Amino acid sequence: MKNRKRKVPNNRLRRRLAGARYVLYGLVAMWLQGFYTGGFAQEKKGVMYYPAEDLTILGKVMPTTVPYHRVDTALYTGLPDNVTKRLTQSAGLAISFKTTSQAIYIKWHTTETMPSAVMTEVAYRGFDLYVREHGAWQYAGVARPRTNSARAATTVSQGMDSTEKEFLLYLPLYTETTHISIGIDEGAAISAGGQPFDHRILVYGSSITQGAAASRPGLAYPARLSRSTGLNFLNLGMGASAQMEKEVADMIAEISADAFVLDCVPNSSPTLIRERTGYLVKAIRARHPDAPIIVMQSVIRESGYVNRATGEKVALQNQYIEEEVMKLQKNGVKNLHLIPAVDFLGHDHEGTVDGTHPNDMGFDRMIQVITPRILAILKQHKIISNKV
Amino acid sequence: MKNRKRKVPNNRLRRRLAGARYVLYGLVAMWLQGFYTGGFAQEKKGVMYYPAEDLTILGKVMPTTVPYHRVDTALYTGLPDNVTKRLTQSAGLAISFKTTSQAIYIKWHTTETMPSAVMTEVAYRGFDLYVREHGAWQYAGVARPRTNSARAATTVSQGMDSTEKEFLLYLPLYTETTHISIGIDEGAAISAGGQPFDHRILVYGSSITQGAAASRPGLAYPARLSRSTGLNFLNLGMGASAQMEKEVADMIAEISADAFVLDCVPNSSPTLIRERTGYLVKAIRARHPDAPIIVMQSVIRESGYVNRATGEKVALQNQYIEEEVMKLQKNGVKNLHLIPAVDFLGHDHEGTVDGTHPNDMGFDRMIQVITPRILAILKQHKIISNKV
Repeated sequence: MKNRKRKVPNNRLRRRLAGARYVLYGLVAMWLQGFYTGGFAQEKKGVMYYPAEDLTILGKVMPTTVPYHRVDTALYTGLPDNVTKRLTQSAGLAISFKTTSQAIYIKWHTTETMPSAVMTEVAYRGFDLYVREHGAWQYAGVARPRTNSARAATTVSQGMDSTEKEFLLYLPLYTETTHISIGIDEGAAISAGGQPFDHRILVYGSSITQGAAASRPGLAYPARLSRSTGLNFLNLGMGASAQMEKEVADMIAEISADAFVLDCVPNSSPTLIRERTGYLVKAIRARHPDAPIIVMQSVIRESGYVNRATGEKVALQNQYIEEEVMKLQKNGVKNLHLIPAVDFLGHDHEGTVDGTHPNDMGFDRMIQVITPRILAILKQHKIISNKV
Repeated sequence: MKNRKRKVPNNRLRRRLAGARYVLYGLVAMWLQGFYTGGFAQEKKGVMYYPAEDLTILGKVMPTTVPYHRVDTALYTGLPDNVTKRLTQSAGLAISFKTTSQAIYIKWHTTETMPSAVMTEVAYRGFDLYVREHGAWQYAGVARPRTNSARAATTVSQGMDSTEKEFLLYLPLYTETTHISIGIDEGAAISAGGQPFDHRILVYGSSITQGAAASRPGLAYPARLSRSTGLNFLNLGMGASAQMEKEVADMIAEISADAFVLDCVPNSSPTLIRERTGYLVKAIRARHPDAPIIVMQSVIRESGYVNRATGEKVALQNQYIEEEVMKLQKNGVKNLHLIPAVDFLGHDHEGTVDGTHPNDMGFDRMIQVITPRILAILKQHKIISNKV
């Protein structure tokens, strides 16, 4: 799929437009019924669209039949319903492509229209675009969904020069994404991009891992870690879940990865942490004898400072996970590490949107704490060199 | 209005509940038609509600007839329509109160239901609550709007102990707020709070000042500045506006303030900056001979790095505003200062939600740059002491 180039000849565009006019009358009835799959009315002239699935899809936890799912849920029928639903959502996925186009357009469909009250629509069901500049990935645009519509077409970025550039287009964090077409200017070239990130580091976690409440998809913390470290952090975040169920643990153990980050404490009760941590860690270790397993404590919920019950629960969760990790280490599980949550959100109590979910500032503080810890562990295990 | 305490006797509650039952049948028809103004169906038993307008309202730019407007727009009929609309939105307002209640509830109405695609609903049309802890204001809860409804009732914070505490409840940033009732537990006391912030520093600006795209109302940058410095920064942000129109300049000059921060470059074209900066600054100076006037350059729009036209426009805006300030200084306008935008958003290009509006991380970086600059100017003019 990589390095395939497609030149768009002018006459092909003209034929398409003529054909479209001719066919349109016949399609109007079906179109009104929602049959037609594109945001046709919003399309611009002189723009050629290509299915994003023909380009390079990054961030896949495993290969899937449905292009923008993270896991092939048909293969794992015993999962809890909410986990199955989350695995069909496109958090952490990105399209890697190159183009000479001076503008980038997008048409897409999702299955949901309503965002959470503590997330932006752009993060929940929109896109953001990065361009490689002097070796680093830099923000290049955002795709805003259409109000109350699961379909949209928009311009993501424009006004660029016509040299070939590399792009990453991050997919919606909290909805299933069923269709993506990337548009470029007529006459420009587009081709599949490469995989810019090394190794595979799976991050299993809650809504926080999935991306709540980053302001746009590329600011979810695994995505930020990938761009800042050059390593391939894979988003296995599942909002309102990540409770280490046996079926989920067995599935995670089957995932090909060089290291496992377990950020699954926030939604696991103290009891569940005692009951299930051992099974999850051992299941991974059985299939991955040498892979480092990095367990993160839960972010301290800001609401726990005023709500004593919440505060005590989080303290217990973090105490129990530490005890479970120590127990496993004592029982001979090697390459098992704990990152304490102290300092995750800073100390001014402004790092969340709702007392639980980090905002971009909270994520930034968390990233500053966990990045050196994770890199040190990966170096220790010789997964990355000491030069990184 | 201050320090008025109301004890809620049990028998009064019982009478109210009995009365409510009796009257309810007669009200059902009207209620179904939306006549009743409360989120009655969501109300909890044992909660007593009080109109927030009877408590202390902070953040008012001037006194108004309508409680949660920032300016009495009936007095300024010549303003552009969008400015008038923005001045009725509740950005920067907060309710100051004290209570012994272990939980805080809220019922409210707004005029709009749809958020921007790059803001959360909580920021756009919800609330957040701060409690004073060891002298500092600390996050205590958030009020999420009801999907597709301009009315909502919810619990903002719970699980607290019953000592009297001071609270600030920040109002929605991007909608008119027509009704607020604050609920406390039956038997608890509530009273108007004080004004915790000193002096009056008016911030005239664009959507960025109004609060786009902070993740919740209390994270708009003037609100953060007030809590971190103890000074009273007043939000005169106007999304899609702040173009220094003569009528707006005349209105601003009438506002009682000890200092003026002008963050009105982002939506003013280079031409408008040349035409209008002089009038605005002189109008303020004529009414406030000694008040420092602090002009901020525009944040560098991240989209300007890829879109050359945007990049050039922002560069020109910032060049022109600097020239205008220097011209005014040369012509004898004293106490006029410029804060350059360099470093406002940091240098990793991750500080905005959409290339224009800072996310919480971008705001945090901007605050770190402007706080010492503003404090130094206020000290220089002896508005605050050198000890702050």
